[in-house]
Amino acid sequence: MGELFETVAAQPPQDKRRVRVIGIGTGDPGQLSGEAIAALTSVAYVIAADKGGGDPLLDVRRRLCERYGVDLVAVRDPERDRDDPADYPGVVRDWHAARVDAYADVLAECPGDAAFLVWGDPAFYDSTLRVVEDLAARLRLACDVIPGISAPQLLAARHRIVLHGIGQPILVTTGRRLADAVIAGHDNIVVMLDGTLACLELDPDGWQIWWGANLGSDDEVLVAGRLADVADDLLRAREAVKARAGWVMDTYLLRRVEARQVPSGA
Amino acid sequence: MGELFETVAAQPPQDKRRVRVIGIGTGDPGQLSGEAIAALTSVAYVIAADKGGGDPLLDVRRRLCERYGVDLVAVRDPERDRDDPADYPGVVRDWHAARVDAYADVLAECPGDAAFLVWGDPAFYDSTLRVVEDLAARLRLACDVIPGISAPQLLAARHRIVLHGIGQPILVTTGRRLADAVIAGHDNIVVMLDGTLACLELDPDGWQIWWGANLGSDDEVLVAGRLADVADDLLRAREAVKARAGWVMDTYLLRRVEARQVPSGA
Repeated sequence: MGELFETVAAQPPQDKRRVRVIGIGTGDPGQLSGEAIAALTSVAYVIAADKGGGDPLLDVRRRLCERYGVDLVAVRDPERDRDDPADYPGVVRDWHAARVDAYADVLAECPGDAAFLVWGDPAFYDSTLRVVEDLAARLRLACDVIPGISAPQLLAARHRIVLHGIGQPILVTTGRRLADAVIAGHDNIVVMLDGTLACLELDPDGWQIWWGANLGSDDEVLVAGRLADVADDLLRAREAVKARAGWVMDTYLLRRVEARQVPSGA
Repeated sequence: MGELFETVAAQPPQDKRRVRVIGIGTGDPGQLSGEAIAALTSVAYVIAADKGGGDPLLDVRRRLCERYGVDLVAVRDPERDRDDPADYPGVVRDWHAARVDAYADVLAECPGDAAFLVWGDPAFYDSTLRVVEDLAARLRLACDVIPGISAPQLLAARHRIVLHGIGQPILVTTGRRLADAVIAGHDNIVVMLDGTLACLELDPDGWQIWWGANLGSDDEVLVAGRLADVADDLLRAREAVKARAGWVMDTYLLRRVEARQVPSGA
């Protein structure tokens, strides 16, 4: 996106074919903004990855397209070669290139503007923008982005909390990097992409947690409390929602108990 | 919010009078979610602070209420005693208490559910939830929160970027704490509430910036580039938007130039 390294205009040129990247929030169609609905209904079709096996995220996209009368082109997601952990960057690079090739084929065959629907917000832990950047460069397309409600925001809303103490910073990170964040002394940490409740490795008396799974879906579950008090609840809730929904995606806020801004209930 | 320190139900009881805290995004009415519009049109009235002097944020709220046919009750914001910096926490506490008193008076006089409209998302750098928590406890009200698009999300959308490198953490902080974040070694820093372009104190060759002012409004301006190249543009753009709109609110992402994930255009 070299053109952005000077003062930029917000909107892409109107005469170019467009790829629109639309944040759809975390499952509840009520989370779509008016701008997102307008973008969705403006395109000729939506391109969506199909990871196979009744991909629940594909189902969400399909239901949105049906609701708004937009065609969906499902593209079988290329297999990642998981047998070569020694060359992980290379594996990701190849997988990324295979995705770009597959989507470029669709765009070559199907005329009109296209959209990608991104779970949550395209600005956080999502590869769609990197794929679309390559596509746009290769096919000389314009691209725009419509933000969506991300899981940490819905987590905060459901628990009715501000994510940080007054004037304090907030770190957003992954389960894999949680230990680094704790060592670095952060007091307010939002964890995304954690498949294994990495928080259970922390000092259970040192942290307050606000946790949510499958936020925005019918199977949404919330747990909050001192880690020492709710560790079993977390494990049970996570298993239960997985059994019920067939998938689980969780997000949580950790706050150091010693931190200055402990909510009044603590 | 002591009731949240165990497994909680997402929705407040249906029979209690409600205060609804609604994120409205950063100025463009198209950013409201369907859920936010439903919440706004469900209440008897909106309570909004009036900071005086043609408060532009009050105008935004007023326009939204007119658009959706909801009454707005403007409450003159209590003066903060700015003459006593030695007791800053005490000053904030008194100001907070005065706000709670003023809103409690409105709620006592005007029946029905009420809403507060929060600029951006109630989860980030906003005091509304703290005020509403006290109100809800005092008046035994239920409260719920609807998330909104925050300025960093719109910033990322407009620049068409992910806020962090692949799998990296992202720190959200204030202008006043930016220097701490840089010393702590963060590579991806989102700065909010910065009245003075604190980024211009940093090594201009060490950082890439993606900057936006008055995002979501007609006066939106974007600048991106290496700090050394765009420092003058930032100062000029900030002054220009302030002169045009009468106010300026800016947000930016800083990324260390040495960081692994430098966008392709750098």
